[in-house]
Amino acid sequence: MNADWLNVPAASLNDAARRAAEERQGQLTKPPGALGRLESVAIRLAAMQGSSQPRIDRVRISVFAADHGVAAEGVSAFPQSVTVEMVRNFARGGAAISVLARELGATLEVMNLGTVNDPGPLDGVLQQRLGPGTANFTIDSAMSEEQLVRALHIGRHSAERARLADGQLYIGGEMGIGNTTSAAALACALLEAPAESLAGPGTGLDVAGVGRKAEVIRRALARHNGSLADPLEALRRLGGFEIAALTGSYIACAQMGLPVLVDGFIATVAALAAVRRRPDAGEWFFYSHASAEPGHARMLAALEAHPLLDLGMRLGEGSGAAVTVPLLRLACALHNGMATFAEAGVSGKS
Amino acid sequence: MNADWLNVPAASLNDAARRAAEERQGQLTKPPGALGRLESVAIRLAAMQGSSQPRIDRVRISVFAADHGVAAEGVSAFPQSVTVEMVRNFARGGAAISVLARELGATLEVMNLGTVNDPGPLDGVLQQRLGPGTANFTIDSAMSEEQLVRALHIGRHSAERARLADGQLYIGGEMGIGNTTSAAALACALLEAPAESLAGPGTGLDVAGVGRKAEVIRRALARHNGSLADPLEALRRLGGFEIAALTGSYIACAQMGLPVLVDGFIATVAALAAVRRRPDAGEWFFYSHASAEPGHARMLAALEAHPLLDLGMRLGEGSGAAVTVPLLRLACALHNGMATFAEAGVSGKS
Repeated sequence: MNADWLNVPAASLNDAARRAAEERQGQLTKPPGALGRLESVAIRLAAMQGSSQPRIDRVRISVFAADHGVAAEGVSAFPQSVTVEMVRNFARGGAAISVLARELGATLEVMNLGTVNDPGPLDGVLQQRLGPGTANFTIDSAMSEEQLVRALHIGRHSAERARLADGQLYIGGEMGIGNTTSAAALACALLEAPAESLAGPGTGLDVAGVGRKAEVIRRALARHNGSLADPLEALRRLGGFEIAALTGSYIACAQMGLPVLVDGFIATVAALAAVRRRPDAGEWFFYSHASAEPGHARMLAALEAHPLLDLGMRLGEGSGAAVTVPLLRLACALHNGMATFAEAGVSGKS
Repeated sequence: MNADWLNVPAASLNDAARRAAEERQGQLTKPPGALGRLESVAIRLAAMQGSSQPRIDRVRISVFAADHGVAAEGVSAFPQSVTVEMVRNFARGGAAISVLARELGATLEVMNLGTVNDPGPLDGVLQQRLGPGTANFTIDSAMSEEQLVRALHIGRHSAERARLADGQLYIGGEMGIGNTTSAAALACALLEAPAESLAGPGTGLDVAGVGRKAEVIRRALARHNGSLADPLEALRRLGGFEIAALTGSYIACAQMGLPVLVDGFIATVAALAAVRRRPDAGEWFFYSHASAEPGHARMLAALEAHPLLDLGMRLGEGSGAAVTVPLLRLACALHNGMATFAEAGVSGKS
């Protein structure tokens, strides 16, 4: 197994479909631009789908769960056992993303990439265990090269399943106690930013806890200093199985031409790693929401990304992306369903 | 007919239901506060509906259309004939709000309160004609006292129909060429703000056009100077039939305990007039979106309102509120459908 597939370019957007969609938006019975970002969403989706009638009927959500060795540094407000407990909760339908998937009629796929406690087979959970969580990256690399390559593959295969099921939108979610620390450390490496600019409260640290988390990240950056220039190597040393899987899934989606709706803090660092590895992949990404996690704004700025929602959410699981799906659907419905000035017999601008 | 009904207080929110909802949010399988504003939306709806399981299944949208005498001052990018043309478009299903109502499964009611050209009976349009539009308020009062009282009543009756149909959320929309000028002038009066702080491009004026619009508003404010302290008198002198109907509908909703989702620039000035007349009504209002019309921010600040969406929309018709409905529905679904820590066997905070 290797990661040569990452060299495949992203699919091209359909420029003719984009131009046709832009033209149609100008003919619909509204002042030009009056639907704001719903217009640009519909135009981008038309270009992605190569269609004059973009649609987001079939949404695929893949949630990747894994544990983090760095949790031993006391960087989370919750005990590590919560990762596997939440895997059960996803599968039984009680978690936020489970509820949202049902409401949206989306297909939800849950993958356990390696929790500290192996729960054995669980109904509704794909077991794709790479180990009992990552290593503590203040001491060692989080992953071996083989684990990284396998995690990227797991993400790729999830994207391929979405494509095979004629999915029209891919959402990746994550769960892993300690993973805002991993995401923040990786973002520091990719953005060459100081630890205190990316360390935040995560699931609910107090000020002292955030200070400890920044200190842990500083130690990790010092430990891996000089080996973080390559985005995949930074991902291997500081990331998590679920973050690497997200990166792999996003790149594969872009290669297959499947639009991606990126969730919040953790998912955005995976998107950042994806774009650093394959800059052309970014054309396929929508950014769903601005997380309440303070460092998210810095990542979004680096990506020149402008999320559609800002509701102060900070849950992960893909939940912020899921909440954004109706906006994409309504953007399509307006684009496809509104009458033109000519059809409606409405006068244009004076 | 009189407006004494405006003296009836707004309904009370259910504090026990609010406390129970707050407690439940703290028990759901997520870090406290991690769903951000979706949590406070669910809690407010629980208090409004007096229910532990708030729901927004039945949405009622009422669109009020009317013409404006001030259009004669050249304050719109579109000809005045568009108002009645759009009324037909609403009824035939081709307008943005028609598409959105269909997608949301919402009931859409269209009312013609007075267009310059009387189209006669139209399928799907309630004719409630108060005259061929308002008078030009740079010269005269926009409405007579009788027209104001009748417009408020029309709004009230629309809210009552929504309530009788067991509606769970009320959205008021508007259409009227020239109505951003009317709304801006009224906001200037209610906020004691200068014309240039509220005049904006509306449907698409250029810089010179916005300057002309501000000049028209300045003339109107000078013409009515000394008579604008009472909010209903300001509404009569500077408002539109559709704006007055929105104000009446919002107050009636608050009196009956029906939650309101306020749309953008025009709807917000109607809400501002409602709150100035009945401060207790404001507890029943959600603000849906920040309009691209620059003066909207000033109104929202005065109302201490924080809209849920900011998508650069500036269409009116109730469209921004309609686009926000799925967020309220998902907030309810999460509140009602997520498992608690105890139910899911998930550990709490360390």
